[in-house]
Amino acid sequence: MLTRIDHIGIACFDLDATVEFYRATYGFEVFHVEVNEEQGVREAMLKINETSDGGASYLQLLEPVREDSPVGKWLARHGEGVHHIAFGTPDVDGAARAVRGKGVRVLYDEPRTGSMGSRITFLHPKDCHGVLTELVTSAPEQ
Amino acid sequence: MLTRIDHIGIACFDLDATVEFYRATYGFEVFHVEVNEEQGVREAMLKINETSDGGASYLQLLEPVREDSPVGKWLARHGEGVHHIAFGTPDVDGAARAVRGKGVRVLYDEPRTGSMGSRITFLHPKDCHGVLTELVTSAPEQ
Repeated sequence: MLTRIDHIGIACFDLDATVEFYRATYGFEVFHVEVNEEQGVREAMLKINETSDGGASYLQLLEPVREDSPVGKWLARHGEGVHHIAFGTPDVDGAARAVRGKGVRVLYDEPRTGSMGSRITFLHPKDCHGVLTELVTSAPEQ
Repeated sequence: MLTRIDHIGIACFDLDATVEFYRATYGFEVFHVEVNEEQGVREAMLKINETSDGGASYLQLLEPVREDSPVGKWLARHGEGVHHIAFGTPDVDGAARAVRGKGVRVLYDEPRTGSMGSRITFLHPKDCHGVLTELVTSAPEQ
């Protein structure tokens, strides 16, 4: 059902400075940058490796574009750090239904748009031993 | 230098219950279990996918074996959640030297023993935008 670690979502106050930290320290390059207005973030994807299911694993660096976005509120409480983890699946709708059927709260009624045209949903961290967990299906062309 | 997301380290109060959550919810199976006395943890590795560098990506579930271990103290402050992220490298000694040379604090003078006979070190989270970051070289036989 879930076939890879798709990404680790890291919340930061200053996206450009954080991108530069990962470039200067480890040599990781930016693969993609976008603003997701619905999620209230500006984000950079750093591709780390490809995966055995034909996908890839990324770091996703997230800067809130407004203080009242979920990531903005999380940053104000926690400071910078790992915000969520994401598993890749070929079928986010089916995976969300299956997980909901096991009693885990799924935060969206229907998947929404994530990085690079993907379709995503989130699982309630209180139902996942404290881990905000995303399920993601990549856009078809990728 | 760093060629994969090796694992996501997740701290939990009850390893058996957390393993069962990941099995029942997603179908993830335990790949390896061990106690690391030096780190003060009992841990389970769940293999999620293989990676393009010939390694793999895991979830590492960590239960403290004593309250005064680093993970035990972290759990008491934060509750359950993502404790650290780890990047795989063929040369943890060289990677640690390189990162130290860029002004990032490396927590061990020499790498120590991690999961499945790997050699590991940690980078100070305050130097890594809030993310406790591990560097890991797998044991040769893997």
